[in-house]
Amino acid sequence: MVQSELAVKAQHAKAAARRLAFTSTAVKDKTLEGIARGLEQDQGAILAANELDLAAGRAAGLSEAMLDRLLLNPKRLAGMAADVRSVAALPDPVGEVFEMRTLANGLQVGKKRTPVGVLGVVYESRPNVTVDISALCLKSGNAVILRGGKEARHSNRALADLVIRACDAAGVPEGAVQLIESTDRALVGEMLRANGLIDMIVPRGGADLHRYCIENATIPVITGGIGVCHTYVDREADLEKAVNIAYNAKVQRPTVCNALDTLLVHRDVAAQCLPMVAKRWATAGVEMRCDPRALEILQKSRGAEEHWKIRPAREDDFGQEFLSLVASIKVVDNLDEALDHIYRYGTQHSEAIVTEDYRAAMRFLNEVDAAAVFVNASTRFTDGGQFGLGAEVAISTQKLHARGPMGLKELTTYKWIVLGDGQVRP
Amino acid sequence: MVQSELAVKAQHAKAAARRLAFTSTAVKDKTLEGIARGLEQDQGAILAANELDLAAGRAAGLSEAMLDRLLLNPKRLAGMAADVRSVAALPDPVGEVFEMRTLANGLQVGKKRTPVGVLGVVYESRPNVTVDISALCLKSGNAVILRGGKEARHSNRALADLVIRACDAAGVPEGAVQLIESTDRALVGEMLRANGLIDMIVPRGGADLHRYCIENATIPVITGGIGVCHTYVDREADLEKAVNIAYNAKVQRPTVCNALDTLLVHRDVAAQCLPMVAKRWATAGVEMRCDPRALEILQKSRGAEEHWKIRPAREDDFGQEFLSLVASIKVVDNLDEALDHIYRYGTQHSEAIVTEDYRAAMRFLNEVDAAAVFVNASTRFTDGGQFGLGAEVAISTQKLHARGPMGLKELTTYKWIVLGDGQVRP
Repeated sequence: MVQSELAVKAQHAKAAARRLAFTSTAVKDKTLEGIARGLEQDQGAILAANELDLAAGRAAGLSEAMLDRLLLNPKRLAGMAADVRSVAALPDPVGEVFEMRTLANGLQVGKKRTPVGVLGVVYESRPNVTVDISALCLKSGNAVILRGGKEARHSNRALADLVIRACDAAGVPEGAVQLIESTDRALVGEMLRANGLIDMIVPRGGADLHRYCIENATIPVITGGIGVCHTYVDREADLEKAVNIAYNAKVQRPTVCNALDTLLVHRDVAAQCLPMVAKRWATAGVEMRCDPRALEILQKSRGAEEHWKIRPAREDDFGQEFLSLVASIKVVDNLDEALDHIYRYGTQHSEAIVTEDYRAAMRFLNEVDAAAVFVNASTRFTDGGQFGLGAEVAISTQKLHARGPMGLKELTTYKWIVLGDGQVRP
Repeated sequence: MVQSELAVKAQHAKAAARRLAFTSTAVKDKTLEGIARGLEQDQGAILAANELDLAAGRAAGLSEAMLDRLLLNPKRLAGMAADVRSVAALPDPVGEVFEMRTLANGLQVGKKRTPVGVLGVVYESRPNVTVDISALCLKSGNAVILRGGKEARHSNRALADLVIRACDAAGVPEGAVQLIESTDRALVGEMLRANGLIDMIVPRGGADLHRYCIENATIPVITGGIGVCHTYVDREADLEKAVNIAYNAKVQRPTVCNALDTLLVHRDVAAQCLPMVAKRWATAGVEMRCDPRALEILQKSRGAEEHWKIRPAREDDFGQEFLSLVASIKVVDNLDEALDHIYRYGTQHSEAIVTEDYRAAMRFLNEVDAAAVFVNASTRFTDGGQFGLGAEVAISTQKLHARGPMGLKELTTYKWIVLGDGQVRP
């Protein structure tokens, strides 16, 4: 029987994972250093491969933004090398023993951290993902099967070759990192059902990819990617902080999932706060889609010389992920209304309150159910690097296994270990 | 539009879960005490309902073993009450803040433990599961939708009514515990695809039920239930411990997933160890299916007066879960062969080594990948109660979210909490 590319690679991955689970930290770190050095020293082949992808992308009429996502250059490769070294510098999560205690019968029972096993990662155009994910998987002792977007296929191949050379040189089991060559979408379907070979699927892409994975996988899938994020300005907010936070959350990088989508403002401070936010947002050209109360305030307070892009919000402007310089605004009567709005429209990604009131802050922290809940800070901080994880494989918005940014620890599981001296169960 | 029973109940559950997430420990414990008291004091209705199930079971020709699984009596109800009180006595896992640290920019970032949300539990005949699961879910702040087996439906209804009365009396949000009335199997399929309403599915039953859930669910499923468990007697084993452990693991309760299926014995101690084990197992009538080397040893050493049930093993006697007084036996050349055998035939449930050799113990602990790995103890200890979790919802043999016995903590997830003072991302 001829096996598919996926079946062959998944079996290699599984065999590699068995040994990778107890490969030493020294070998793993040496591999990462090899990858980093390769990214600095062997740029020729990677840049040549990238040029092929860019040329194909130009020929296919990709947008400038898409081409920029594809682009590699010496500076970006150096940045990738630095990221790999920062993963190498993190402690190895594998082997940690925790919650160990001695039972009445003398058994010592606890948990020992282990890799998950084999990851399948499906991602889109950015070629740096090939290296980021490989580094995180190697350090956490997981084997990985990478399935990148076809626009980046020459770049991904060159980067994966570099990773695999570093693995070989350091003595990592063969098959630890593998790149799928086929761009046939059916192969993703096969990957999602490779029970017994792949332990976890991580999709990195838009809502469609996530939905496809949820619908079709029989393997656990880490879902995420969609963030409808709210910032609520409370009655007791420091309005200067509120304006800075709203500006940063919306403008610093509007195309990503942790950017602000909806600003909620307590009615008692709306008349003062909204014009301050509008003025600041206007400097970046943010379009504001306002509920009737917010609209009235902004229309009244707009000076003749101000170029505010304000217009009435439609119902579907709430609960929408804009991924651009657009925000919806709603005035709420109180904290309860803000909590209800977030419960109804949020996607459990990142939610923030701006307040100096202890009780409001505590209620928001306790009652909002999201991957990350902020008091007096920008939702843009929801990020593995920012949270101190070194890097991230994905941001999970589901509840099982891991939530929010997933770094090394989130790529592990545990086994119970039981140390006895002949104990039997009565 | 008329909604299905499941859709209506799942929406109630979701609404309840939102409030249950921050219901106080005092209210939750009061609910559990109410359940325990009800089990002690209101036995009439439960026993009457159970009598209906038993009568129907007898009429349907259920085996004595099945009828015994169904049976409730005052003593069993008292035992259930004691279990509920032991869950009440455990610390509330919800709200724990952990891994909290202050970043260079002054942000305090950490994790706060939260309930998973809504659980869907599909189980078979034992009615005590209705109470066990309800108690664990309530204490951990989760709402639950219970779908029991139809043989126990009157008993389950009476027990669920008791639980719901205790919830109402203590002020737990309505809808926290609900029992599905319909015995239509299509409803299980609907449950498995109730994304956005149910957060986690826990099947409790045989391999078929688990497979059905894996194949059909679009919600995360906790799988488990199957245990092909090995005990390896090393060259450096204390043979007295080995015999006691092998006896306990096979005989103490042979019908469960953590019972011994295969005994692996190092060739250097096989001639001494196997007759000792056979003699002890023979006292319980254990049938031994032996590989050629084990067979030869046992045939040679059997005394005329011994009634050992020994016969040659077939290939499929390895990797089989016997759930009865049958075990397969294999002589291995060394630890590596034992590890390979377990890797090939195990189901990542519970695996044990008997040895006094430090290096062999360490290698076994590190290299065997299973939910629970034992040194010098019986695999029968893989159990939430035995591990000090008070009780268990299930034993997971998958790797994501939780592994092994799942108690209160394993019914929780976390959210990142970020406490700032106006920080924005540079």
